[in-house]
Amino acid sequence: MSSDLARQAADVLQRVRATRPRVHCLMNTVVQKFTADGISGIGGIPSMTTSVEEVEAFVARADALTINLGTLDRDRREAIGLAIDAAGRQAKPWIVDPVHIDYSPSRLAFARTLLARAPSCVRGNAAEMQMLGDTGAMLRIQTGASDLLSKGGKSIRVDNGHPWMAQVTGTGCLSGGVIAAFMAVEADALTAGASALLVVGVSAEMAAQHSRGPGSFGIALLDALAAVTATDLITHARIIHEQG
Amino acid sequence: MSSDLARQAADVLQRVRATRPRVHCLMNTVVQKFTADGISGIGGIPSMTTSVEEVEAFVARADALTINLGTLDRDRREAIGLAIDAAGRQAKPWIVDPVHIDYSPSRLAFARTLLARAPSCVRGNAAEMQMLGDTGAMLRIQTGASDLLSKGGKSIRVDNGHPWMAQVTGTGCLSGGVIAAFMAVEADALTAGASALLVVGVSAEMAAQHSRGPGSFGIALLDALAAVTATDLITHARIIHEQG
Amino acid sequence: MSSDLARQAADVLQRVRATRPRVHCLMNTVVQKFTADGISGIGGIPSMTTSVEEVEAFVARADALTINLGTLDRDRREAIGLAIDAAGRQAKPWIVDPVHIDYSPSRLAFARTLLARAPSCVRGNAAEMQMLGDTGAMLRIQTGASDLLSKGGKSIRVDNGHPWMAQVTGTGCLSGGVIAAFMAVEADALTAGASALLVVGVSAEMAAQHSRGPGSFGIALLDALAAVTATDLITHARIIHEQG
Repeated sequence: MSSDLARQAADVLQRVRATRPRVHCLMNTVVQKFTADGISGIGGIPSMTTSVEEVEAFVARADALTINLGTLDRDRREAIGLAIDAAGRQAKPWIVDPVHIDYSPSRLAFARTLLARAPSCVRGNAAEMQMLGDTGAMLRIQTGASDLLSKGGKSIRVDNGHPWMAQVTGTGCLSGGVIAAFMAVEADALTAGASALLVVGVSAEMAAQHSRGPGSFGIALLDALAAVTATDLITHARIIHEQG
Repeated sequence: MSSDLARQAADVLQRVRATRPRVHCLMNTVVQKFTADGISGIGGIPSMTTSVEEVEAFVARADALTINLGTLDRDRREAIGLAIDAAGRQAKPWIVDPVHIDYSPSRLAFARTLLARAPSCVRGNAAEMQMLGDTGAMLRIQTGASDLLSKGGKSIRVDNGHPWMAQVTGTGCLSGGVIAAFMAVEADALTAGASALLVVGVSAEMAAQHSRGPGSFGIALLDALAAVTATDLITHARIIHEQG
Repeated sequence: MSSDLARQAADVLQRVRATRPRVHCLMNTVVQKFTADGISGIGGIPSMTTSVEEVEAFVARADALTINLGTLDRDRREAIGLAIDAAGRQAKPWIVDPVHIDYSPSRLAFARTLLARAPSCVRGNAAEMQMLGDTGAMLRIQTGASDLLSKGGKSIRVDNGHPWMAQVTGTGCLSGGVIAAFMAVEADALTAGASALLVVGVSAEMAAQHSRGPGSFGIALLDALAAVTATDLITHARIIHEQG
């Protein structure tokens, strides 16, 4: 079972590297470069503006969109609405990353309005996903020591990864960008999401072997995303399929 | 004398790692990730929003607050006022980092209004601290080749550190975040501040041993903050107590 | 020919390191720290605010200005106008980096208004420079696998660099900051620009020798910018002078 999805993931990764999908990111200001470098690492092309004058033009040229709710200021809220409009006009995949909605009632309320617009995917940690409750038909991803994916009664658990991911600000945000890149080239959302998280998780395990701590691990993760091979994925995958 | 404070610093660090204080940062846009990774490295939990709609909710959940005056735009000024209100309501420690007040008269004037609200600590370089003049009863920290701390007639000088710190943008800002984390778990401000700067300074010396230049040093510093031990602190501390 | 310019470049670099020019950057939010660390690495002093209340005070203390059009929001447009006014009053060199004008009509229109104000230099990639068309008398730099510089009928091609530069977000933006630093100490724009790109290109080749992939390469580039010597430049320069 692990090796079947690992082969699929290798195929999706190969398509990302071959076709270089553009991913527009409405990304919190903290981890813009880290996320951009991660998307470039796996073979995509990132863009990052949150300018309300420009965001529609950037999304119109992108193949997928990730909306991250960190550092959610006024202009960013307005830009997010425009970006979703633009993605919707061209039926492009878009995902929501509801960062820290457990800290801020106004952010939680805003996240709910986004989910009502039917993104392709929502990805958060356990505390964030619990705040959201039932999210209906979209792909739902809860990341953590194990990543849990579910959609339409099917579930997948990806056990790859490394504890240092929790000590590096932005690994979850970066994963959101990678998921968007994979959705740009793979129509089956559950396959795209599980493939992306397998690639990130196996890359993290490879990165940890060249690291002294969380600082060098964050850098080595970028190296590993650019280097990870089909053989790495097939050899190291720890995946469980479940009925939801 | 060095070893007494080093033992105290090791104890405060152990409490930070055990209790994981939350530090909300109104941090300039340049070094948000570096500061967040540094706070995570020593064991704290960082948050970074400057959104005026959300900053009070984040500070209400935090254990300490650091206010950095870099990239001081309009929204940030408003958010800073709200954050200080929120910290004041719960008597949480908060520190001011008056970045580049020697460049900008409007920033200097704004810094003075913040000091009038009685932060727990102000930390700057020599040029910045000179602009401020007498700062009264709060803990005063001037960082540089030696770090000079004073409060209520007591002074401490910490001589640890490395020249590469001056070539990496944000080491001072990161220190501000670490000081806030230490103040969250240690009520004596002078002990908290000196402990934080000893941890950063010894970590910098450890980091330099694994670095080829300022780029790799900045990353190795994050590794060292996560790895530094009580023995490292006690072995390497270079601290002088003085009467003010 | 290569060795003549390499010797000139070594001389300009030595002057940057000796005089430490201040470079104010209106830099996109994604790569502020990377650019600041690059400018510090070669010996300059970076500053980054885009606050409309403060930008004139910062430019007044700077020796050169770089204007990067990434993440071009409303406040940033206003700050750019004020910064150019301030640079013009003191006849300081300033350069325009028209990031992604091929994505956004409003950004292209804005870039044209900046070029009409006669910057010292415009630097972009092939797609961006093609959008601009004829740029008149200013120094024109197109970076890529080869860097092409032209001004007043003279042209220089710099062939140094490394393919990983294209996978690290912000190497072009960082180059813009380095060019500005070199223009602060060298009045001949073509010499300053070619020297800066030679320093960055040779540093990139040195960095690649210590890297496992694009993540560690980005960090090693910062190390190399701080370490590169006159001998490195003279030994490794691959430069061609052409008549335009």
